[in-house]
Amino acid sequence: MNALGRHLLVELHECDKEALNDLGFLRKVMLDAAIECGAMVLGESFHRFSPQGVSGVVIIAESHLSIHTWPEYAYAAVDVFTCGTSVQPEKAAELLVEKLGSRNHSLLEIPRGVLVTV
Amino acid sequence: MNALGRHLLVELHECDKEALNDLGFLRKVMLDAAIECGAMVLGESFHRFSPQGVSGVVIIAESHLSIHTWPEYAYAAVDVFTCGTSVQPEKAAELLVEKLGSRNHSLLEIPRGVLVTV
Repeated sequence: MNALGRHLLVELHECDKEALNDLGFLRKVMLDAAIECGAMVLGESFHRFSPQGVSGVVIIAESHLSIHTWPEYAYAAVDVFTCGTSVQPEKAAELLVEKLGSRNHSLLEIPRGVLVTV
Repeated sequence: MNALGRHLLVELHECDKEALNDLGFLRKVMLDAAIECGAMVLGESFHRFSPQGVSGVVIIAESHLSIHTWPEYAYAAVDVFTCGTSVQPEKAAELLVEKLGSRNHSLLEIPRGVLVTV
């Protein structure tokens, strides 16, 4: 299939609740994940919510990674959206599963920008 | 279904190519889209690529909006990820379809954080 991008939607359940509320830790893990999959980091934006939860996005030259956490449910929603053949988004997903201690996770890949040539 | 978030994946084909390469325009449209759906903007990060294309993310209190454009294919990949009942992500999608002049688009909604209660 002729797609411009690969978009991984990663559902991370049964994570370490403390990790999901630690902005500094999540920022480092997300930047590490970007590097792990071979991406070039261009920018990032992270926010902690009250009373709990963190949202963060890392913009990469190959698209983006995002995370939204609900510590109260031990759950994080992660997206890894990449374009080009030099990156391996599943490596970022694997690192995040490991670092967040997820014991129940799923991954859905959606091709983005499927071009129909006639 | 008991989901924490609504994630709209919007494929915008046959867009206005000039609009897809105009960072200032896209930044304004994405911020307008966030407001249109009732979200509270917390941060943003936009980048223009050489020779063409723009990536941008708007972090909102309710999750995020992102856009990646390929002017050479008149295509943009948009995500609108929201949580809570006070926002209407489809309104953001509708605004982006209109402002980017997309004549061929599709929308896929993926529930995120589906909690199984036993």
